[in-house]
Amino acid sequence: MEKNLDSISALCKRAGFIFPSSEIYGGLNGFWDYGPMGSELKRNIRDAWWHYTVQWREDVVGLDATIIMNPRIWEASGHVGGFADPMVDCKDCKKRHRADQLCEEQGLKLVQEGKGWKLPEGCKCTACGSKNLTEPRSFNLMFKTYVGPVEDDSAVAYLRPETAQAIFAQFLNIVPTSRKKVPFGVAQSGKSFRNEINPRNYTFRSREFEQMELEFFIRPDEAVELICGHVATLADKPDLNGEPQEDWGWEVWHKYWVERRLEWYRLAGLPESDLHLYWQTKEELAHYARACVDIEYAFPFGVQELEGIAARSNFDLSQHEKFSGKSMTVQDDRLRLACAEKSDEEKASFKAKVVADWVARGKTQFDAEAFVDLLFQGKYVPHVIEPSAGTDRLALALICNAYDEEKLVDAKGKEDVRTVLRFSPAIAPVKVAVLPLVKNNEALRAKARELYKALQRKWKCAWDETGAIGRRYRRQDEIGTPFCVTVDFETLGEEKPELKDTVTVRLRDSMEQLRMPIAELVPYVEKAILL
Amino acid sequence: MEKNLDSISALCKRAGFIFPSSEIYGGLNGFWDYGPMGSELKRNIRDAWWHYTVQWREDVVGLDATIIMNPRIWEASGHVGGFADPMVDCKDCKKRHRADQLCEEQGLKLVQEGKGWKLPEGCKCTACGSKNLTEPRSFNLMFKTYVGPVEDDSAVAYLRPETAQAIFAQFLNIVPTSRKKVPFGVAQSGKSFRNEINPRNYTFRSREFEQMELEFFIRPDEAVELICGHVATLADKPDLNGEPQEDWGWEVWHKYWVERRLEWYRLAGLPESDLHLYWQTKEELAHYARACVDIEYAFPFGVQELEGIAARSNFDLSQHEKFSGKSMTVQDDRLRLACAEKSDEEKASFKAKVVADWVARGKTQFDAEAFVDLLFQGKYVPHVIEPSAGTDRLALALICNAYDEEKLVDAKGKEDVRTVLRFSPAIAPVKVAVLPLVKNNEALRAKARELYKALQRKWKCAWDETGAIGRRYRRQDEIGTPFCVTVDFETLGEEKPELKDTVTVRLRDSMEQLRMPIAELVPYVEKAILL
Repeated sequence: MEKNLDSISALCKRAGFIFPSSEIYGGLNGFWDYGPMGSELKRNIRDAWWHYTVQWREDVVGLDATIIMNPRIWEASGHVGGFADPMVDCKDCKKRHRADQLCEEQGLKLVQEGKGWKLPEGCKCTACGSKNLTEPRSFNLMFKTYVGPVEDDSAVAYLRPETAQAIFAQFLNIVPTSRKKVPFGVAQSGKSFRNEINPRNYTFRSREFEQMELEFFIRPDEAVELICGHVATLADKPDLNGEPQEDWGWEVWHKYWVERRLEWYRLAGLPESDLHLYWQTKEELAHYARACVDIEYAFPFGVQELEGIAARSNFDLSQHEKFSGKSMTVQDDRLRLACAEKSDEEKASFKAKVVADWVARGKTQFDAEAFVDLLFQGKYVPHVIEPSAGTDRLALALICNAYDEEKLVDAKGKEDVRTVLRFSPAIAPVKVAVLPLVKNNEALRAKARELYKALQRKWKCAWDETGAIGRRYRRQDEIGTPFCVTVDFETLGEEKPELKDTVTVRLRDSMEQLRMPIAELVPYVEKAILL
Repeated sequence: MEKNLDSISALCKRAGFIFPSSEIYGGLNGFWDYGPMGSELKRNIRDAWWHYTVQWREDVVGLDATIIMNPRIWEASGHVGGFADPMVDCKDCKKRHRADQLCEEQGLKLVQEGKGWKLPEGCKCTACGSKNLTEPRSFNLMFKTYVGPVEDDSAVAYLRPETAQAIFAQFLNIVPTSRKKVPFGVAQSGKSFRNEINPRNYTFRSREFEQMELEFFIRPDEAVELICGHVATLADKPDLNGEPQEDWGWEVWHKYWVERRLEWYRLAGLPESDLHLYWQTKEELAHYARACVDIEYAFPFGVQELEGIAARSNFDLSQHEKFSGKSMTVQDDRLRLACAEKSDEEKASFKAKVVADWVARGKTQFDAEAFVDLLFQGKYVPHVIEPSAGTDRLALALICNAYDEEKLVDAKGKEDVRTVLRFSPAIAPVKVAVLPLVKNNEALRAKARELYKALQRKWKCAWDETGAIGRRYRRQDEIGTPFCVTVDFETLGEEKPELKDTVTVRLRDSMEQLRMPIAELVPYVEKAILL
């Protein structure tokens, strides 16, 4: 079945997943709300990420920082200076375009010129066809506001365009209070804002969106070498699914997190075969980055990024060190002890090797020596691996992946189409629907209510007593409920005593029906929830 | 023990609960971040609220709307026109004050003059003592930004000053997609922003904060009367802890939600004796409100509001009906059927009664008749009860309530002080700490790791193997971990086979130690988590 964004977004609206923000006032371009089902879906995604990334690990802690922060943070990070898209206006129809997207739509490529851009030959307005376009100019994507009662330059602040920077800005508070030692990570999920010139592709490119970001701090390779005598690389074929090892260098740590993220997506219900890894080329990488992989998903509107996993060296912490004047070095006792055991000759030869290596990579001898001198004291600014995922993009990918229109033929040969969202149980907004077979039998209804009330304490459950049972199943299929539990006369044990306290569990995907004792229900559902 | 905000905020920083936002850049006044422990605490509060308010009920659904919405919403709600505080400047020292707070600090009262304010006689600057103050002028508390690439009036948008309005704005999408009938509610939790002139009292009055809001829609009393023949009031002594009844009028519904919220605070760990109910007087109530109760807590800096529970009539939906031009009436089949059974005489006498009642309350006969004519068709704009709670305020109240410095005297008569956060288990950031008695016994450590790994799948757990066991208990006391589980040689069954696979559970509050089979641990902890 070809998946069609129109059918998917129609279902999202009618089943209460996604509504345009402020729709009664004509909406607001680039803003979307999550309805009763969508808000549960997003809670489940956030929770699944937190469980896997923070709760199940002992080397990651959480952070929940503000959206508005001191604007110096965005100077240090480079966002004030450089977080901009090229913008072009059509002088005839007045339509505004993002220059790179405008080119792309015509099979052209925007031309980089120094720090600016130029439109390629033949580029025209896709709205009216005119070639009368302005030159591309830079438009900063950060939403600006004023903190305090005076609207002047000193009061300017920004809505964060990413959650990550708060982790770097709070690094010095987190290290001593969390009692964690490098390697360790800090995770945060929350809203971010980008004033996109052209929001598009449904919720994919929104102006307000949610992120789930991890900054995982690691030792510089040179520190690993001093401690372990060598640095493991991928060539050493490390076991990336076992416990992390002390001799891992940045390359192994980066790949380790790529594997973890792929595993997480699989547990969340996205088949690995539908995920594409895009390794950025040397030319595409930021100057400080060692590697960056995009995890992409084949949306109905094209293959697009869900998450980027970057090895960012110690760029971010170093920038904040420079801008705040606060030292971002950590004290690493393992390293200090390892260095204390080295002879002067060993140290001198190590230093010479690092200096040669750094100079070959275009850095100064002075910087290299200062770095090694700090290392010998057991100190360094940690490097970082950054898996950064978009919550709304993932919600959309999970909905697209789950969406199915299944052709059914009944016993009489009548054809029918069943719309079903095949969510993994961990992600499904409603886990269990409890359905009394009939509405007007007091004992049966009471039994079903009792079961519903008990299950509700564990999960979001649905109660539905109206309409034929088949129709009720279909309603649950549309919101992706994995298990429908029907309470019938046999549950009451009236006819066959051996079936007393058993229920029918109808499975969403196969439409198979199992008979199961009520007592086995909770462990059965629990087992299906993998995150 | 008198609770001191300085000791509490010092613990919050050192234990990783709360940090000033952007601290390395000198912070940002009115913005606070939650560290490793604080982010878990806030997750637990949010979850506890969602479980109780949404998951465990079938008459409440969720919403997750954007922070930036169409600005017409804030015109309809009255925030663009009226959401302002009076601001005063000292002409001598240039300090800016919130006029009402400035007066209050001197035992004075700000004078209302028409739609404006006047300073009372004798009011001076609390910073420099000067009486040379400007007259109070209005300052709108909404943070303003621009959506899209042009910074002109048509692009102005606001950061929401409350989450509630999105619920009203999405009412028409939620009713048909959720299949809920009045009475039912919509719950939302998320960030809100108010550009306070004077943020103060630690995290209590912040510029960026989180809310947990419920809009519970009910029938107008007149509809209840048509359906049930009467309207139950508190004088009828309804059972507020049982199932809601069809004959409840707004007064009973309002009190029902006050009771629910008090029950929730109790389950979250705030003793009811420390909560104060403040019923707003007729003069204090907004013109459309029927009643409003503040739930207050005795903070170290004074008794302050945690939550307001207002009966807001149908003011909000009616405003959006007026501003959007979209009808906010619902079709109520129970009402339509009840009206269909009424005779023309019954209807005429009912209408006359409602008109007399409305006119006595200062409304027009025309409006009253139009309202009753709609009722007879089974239609009305629902009324609403709004329990609106502050997440950060509650986090602070729970920390203040939990904070204790306990004087201990050991066997040798030596005095000691133990700092402990007595959180309820549902709210505690870490539920269980697993402590191997010794560090260097492989079998014992392996047993403890196995237990830790298993418990971690269920809850946020801590692992601590460094230092004496008593010291490790104290570390967990400081972050409020309710249960410490020690794995010792008896767990291995080496000496006493009957103690194999049992552990010591040390209780935070009583410091009591229980011996318990590992198999009983999970149900034991589960039972303690009430939300």
